Amino acid sequence: MSKRVAGPEIERLIQLLAKVPGLGPRSARRAALHLIKKKEQLLAPLASAMSEAVEKVRVCSNCGNVDTADPCMICTDPSRDQSTIIVVEDVSDLWAMERATGLNALYHVLGGTLSPLDGIGPDQLTIRQLVDRIAAGEVKEVILAVNATVEGQTTAHYLTDQLAEFGVRVTRLAHGVPVGGELDYLDEGTLAAALKSRTVF
Amino acid sequence: MSKRVAGPEIERLIQLLAKVPGLGPRSARRAALHLIKKKEQLLAPLASAMSEAVEKVRVCSNCGNVDTADPCMICTDPSRDQSTIIVVEDVSDLWAMERATGLNALYHVLGGTLSPLDGIGPDQLTIRQLVDRIAAGEVKEVILAVNATVEGQTTAHYLTDQLAEFGVRVTRLAHGVPVGGELDYLDEGTLAAALKSRTVF
Repeated sequence: MSKRVAGPEIERLIQLLAKVPGLGPRSARRAALHLIKKKEQLLAPLASAMSEAVEKVRVCSNCGNVDTADPCMICTDPSRDQSTIIVVEDVSDLWAMERATGLNALYHVLGGTLSPLDGIGPDQLTIRQLVDRIAAGEVKEVILAVNATVEGQTTAHYLTDQLAEFGVRVTRLAHGVPVGGELDYLDEGTLAAALKSRTVF
Repeated sequence: MSKRVAGPEIERLIQLLAKVPGLGPRSARRAALHLIKKKEQLLAPLASAMSEAVEKVRVCSNCGNVDTADPCMICTDPSRDQSTIIVVEDVSDLWAMERATGLNALYHVLGGTLSPLDGIGPDQLTIRQLVDRIAAGEVKEVILAVNATVEGQTTAHYLTDQLAEFGVRVTRLAHGVPVGGELDYLDEGTLAAALKSRTVF
């Protein structure tokens, strides 16, 4: 706001809300006003949930997931298949995979992809920790669920090399037509990949 | 999330974020993850800003604005023109007017519009407080900056009647072509109003 219409506390709240992904300067104002109007029902609980998250949330030292426990809920879940690790770039990918799959496996969050130009080499990712987990011997399959981007695929190749000596099965997600997708709107690379990996009907 | 991938604290944070206007269930997850990653730079300051707002923000007993002081910054600002009150439906309208206008006036927030079918009569709005402010005698002009909706205009008519006895000048916002607007996309009512209120070029 160019002119101040409210105390600095409210303006600070708006400024901080504007940094939340999905909110811009305009919607941050709207959100702040809504929160202030629902002070007891929404603002107070949200403030305490955030304080609690600040205090309790940490990165799992085993897999890189974020949780209030370390090791995280997934790593310590005895019902999960301990012989399969799904490797993802980011925690958001872990959440997406977990929502989508019935695979009750373990995860490993890389923390990004290899990108030499940006100074991100193997040591900036959690590749060493992954190799250590595989070296421990219990894992039989590593599923590389990285993005289908150049960086993602480069990282997948590098990981495949690193894991070769351990004799684990290294797999990757299939390329193909997205469910519900229309062929007309798909790029040629995806169509070619889908055709190459066609399955018997 | 159908399956739990993180502790209840994180899921609660996501659920509460999803209730913020502008965020849905999916963007709330993304926002939560971003906040957790930027724990020190964003999550912690936001949590404390919210706690502070819960504690300090109140409705101005004079004009209905929200602020950390009561009476609010606007009501207590001696540089403002004490003879003009801009009447708005909601605090968000006050903020919008304040961003837009160079008018350094006072405000009065009605808290809605008259809507007999919804059980909202004059007593559910801050009309009595407005009348009291006018009766005090210092105000010379009341600008009705209510929405150009049926409810807004009904409320404007009612207010005009209520304020008639005090001899103040009651004005309303002009109807017309929005700045930057294209005639082709405008409704007939707006065009007719703009034509009727045409000004000398």
